[in-house]
Amino acid sequence: MAHIQLPAAPELGREFPGIVGLMTFRPETAAPINELANVLLRGESTLTRGERELIATHVSWRNGCFFCQTIHGAVAAAQLGHDEQLVHKVKTDWESAEISPKLKALLNIAGKVQLGGKNVTAADVAAARRQGATDLEIHDTVLIAAVFCMCNRYVDALDTWAPEDPAIYRMRAAEIVEHGYSGVTETAAASVQR
Amino acid sequence: MAHIQLPAAPELGREFPGIVGLMTFRPETAAPINELANVLLRGESTLTRGERELIATHVSWRNGCFFCQTIHGAVAAAQLGHDEQLVHKVKTDWESAEISPKLKALLNIAGKVQLGGKNVTAADVAAARRQGATDLEIHDTVLIAAVFCMCNRYVDALDTWAPEDPAIYRMRAAEIVEHGYSGVTETAAASVQR
Repeated sequence: MAHIQLPAAPELGREFPGIVGLMTFRPETAAPINELANVLLRGESTLTRGERELIATHVSWRNGCFFCQTIHGAVAAAQLGHDEQLVHKVKTDWESAEISPKLKALLNIAGKVQLGGKNVTAADVAAARRQGATDLEIHDTVLIAAVFCMCNRYVDALDTWAPEDPAIYRMRAAEIVEHGYSGVTETAAASVQR
Repeated sequence: MAHIQLPAAPELGREFPGIVGLMTFRPETAAPINELANVLLRGESTLTRGERELIATHVSWRNGCFFCQTIHGAVAAAQLGHDEQLVHKVKTDWESAEISPKLKALLNIAGKVQLGGKNVTAADVAAARRQGATDLEIHDTVLIAAVFCMCNRYVDALDTWAPEDPAIYRMRAAEIVEHGYSGVTETAAASVQR
């Protein structure tokens, strides 16, 4: 069990996994975190939803957060023709992945944000701009990476559990693709016995 | 100037400093970030506002983010009898600071969150609980630390500027104490020329 006592989900006989369990414990902070995820990962953007989920997945992999890299990897795959091989490649070796040069330049920035904000240089930003990245795309890439440095720490520092079966993540990913982040955790919160 | 073009604040002849400039650029993400800060740092809690700002300040110091450690240090001081020496001590050497054993145990957890979520052990959590920390206090400490790992990266990765004069931070801190985080950035957003 997690470091703190989380509400039990009747359908599981224990708490919801990962950040979902934490969100049922503290709905007041869940709401803005989900809103931030919805705007950045699903809101209007010149980056596709799949591209933005790949950035989130790569950063979560760099932070070693199993739950976040697996659920966001599954959401990315669901939005990229179910190409799980591509998601794996972007996590571990994006430089040789079959993605656009612009996305590569943005993943380079995201990886540096994971190490610490000061690692991002004017040259990194100029390289992204040369591949056609706009200021808004650069901004959102930095903020997605920073948001996952938050979420990964939140999930791991409180020692939440994570299922191992990939089928569970595929099923949850389909729900997120359909209903968004707020929708999925609101359903979870409504179901817990407090 | 920052890595991306931010709106100019007429009163400054350039963009607002730190995260405020970024928030005027992207109000859609500013709103949930401010809401999260308001709930965690100013909402109902058994930790004082001063204690919560000290946690934010210590993590921002650990991440080397000058803007965040200085503004949140100023907000902490404003809520702790203007004791700037105490704030400095908590940043650099909390173990010998004149604070409660409970806050020390929570700062220990926050510092480990900054390094990465997996660094927090069951023993760290048990030590906090022995000093009277509740599950909600432990949760909020972890999330405050995680939120500042996000904000520090956001501010530094986009290379925002920060004033050096401590008087400016004291003045802004007084506004935050009075109006909250959303209030201050909404005023900034309304004033910029887009």
